[in-house]
Amino acid sequence: MGRVYIVGAGPGDPELITVKGLRLLGSADVVLHDRLVSAELLRRVKPGALVIDVGKRPGGVGPSQEEINELLFSYAKRYDLVVRLHGGDPLVFGRGFEECEFLVSRGVPCEFVPGITSGLAAPAKYFIPPVVRGVASSVVLATGREDPRKGARQVDFRRLAGAVDTIIIYMGASAAGEIARELMEGGLPGDTPVAVVKSAYFIDEEFSMTTLANLYSVPNPSIIVVGKVVERGVRLWEAARRLSL
Amino acid sequence: MGRVYIVGAGPGDPELITVKGLRLLGSADVVLHDRLVSAELLRRVKPGALVIDVGKRPGGVGPSQEEINELLFSYAKRYDLVVRLHGGDPLVFGRGFEECEFLVSRGVPCEFVPGITSGLAAPAKYFIPPVVRGVASSVVLATGREDPRKGARQVDFRRLAGAVDTIIIYMGASAAGEIARELMEGGLPGDTPVAVVKSAYFIDEEFSMTTLANLYSVPNPSIIVVGKVVERGVRLWEAARRLSL
Repeated sequence: MGRVYIVGAGPGDPELITVKGLRLLGSADVVLHDRLVSAELLRRVKPGALVIDVGKRPGGVGPSQEEINELLFSYAKRYDLVVRLHGGDPLVFGRGFEECEFLVSRGVPCEFVPGITSGLAAPAKYFIPPVVRGVASSVVLATGREDPRKGARQVDFRRLAGAVDTIIIYMGASAAGEIARELMEGGLPGDTPVAVVKSAYFIDEEFSMTTLANLYSVPNPSIIVVGKVVERGVRLWEAARRLSL
Repeated sequence: MGRVYIVGAGPGDPELITVKGLRLLGSADVVLHDRLVSAELLRRVKPGALVIDVGKRPGGVGPSQEEINELLFSYAKRYDLVVRLHGGDPLVFGRGFEECEFLVSRGVPCEFVPGITSGLAAPAKYFIPPVVRGVASSVVLATGREDPRKGARQVDFRRLAGAVDTIIIYMGASAAGEIARELMEGGLPGDTPVAVVKSAYFIDEEFSMTTLANLYSVPNPSIIVVGKVVERGVRLWEAARRLSL
């Protein structure tokens, strides 16, 4: 029986994987990867290694989670070292935990190698600090998705609004306008600054700034950052950029 | 004028720095580092590079932030490539942002290279997912510190208690009992599981589990994780460990 490493690739820049993640990628017999993993990283596997794309495509095309679990199990039976490569971090809005639960229940050892989660990496590129003295002492990472069982959003953004200083939303693109409304109903002013980072560190990256009152449509996939830190960070980013020109 | 890279070293394991961080560390003329950075990493600098410990020691001994800023500036004037190496991530409860603000105000270009923040890396080692379907959809990273100006804690944990699913506390060791009380006053049950990870990935790492009602003293430095995910994660960690024996 082989061993499965559930590895975070970090955001789009292939140099933002950890040294350990890259080492495991280079010694793996089989790599099963997400769609949001840089193509350059996948060229770092050893000769003869199997590389399998298990990413979900827009519209839901691609293997189901159950199929991914079964694939991981079947490769672990036949090969010594299997890497399951997730974009970002496997435990932050990935399905790495469930994959490991499945494998361990079938007797396959697994372990996690963390990656830089896109919710923190995306704002960092624009110098936006999740927290900073005097401005923000807490930051929440939250999903914008609905819970299909209860027919409502998984996270109560009205309640979150007054409780934390910086709000970072994953998978919120399709509901951005509604989430903005919920945050304002929860007490956040309409002029609260918002940053939207699409495809952070990938070739099609886009950055924009707006305010909660003006947040409507957002490209997918994006990280949405809400809070005063946005303004302070982007001001520094612009000043630093002027120095580099 | 040189350039300053403000780099996150990640947690104690030297293999958990990013590939980019390690590359910059290996080409830097000067490295100014925190106390919570692995000694092995510091051996990866190029021959002749200056390595300067600017870490604060227990009791507050060590250079002040103003002195660190001035050191960074003075080295940037004399050398091409200066790395400021922070434990974890420089923007998550580090002072990387203020350092970059200071440098840019003096005309020194700087940029950030993210690292894996200890608040997410520490629970990952024990398989604790910050979020997981059906259990937790949001996670907050919060400081346990007081704000000396207002003589109260920077974060309102009573309010946080009902608003987010998983609570990860940095720098909360000395106030752990009080924070636990505030979270219970905010509505969290006394039997809510808590994990405490001291010095994650360092040689003196310690792990313990308790409940909010039993959270009193915590060793320093520790990451405190509060929420149902703790139980689910540690159960998987224990099962995986049995497979590896």
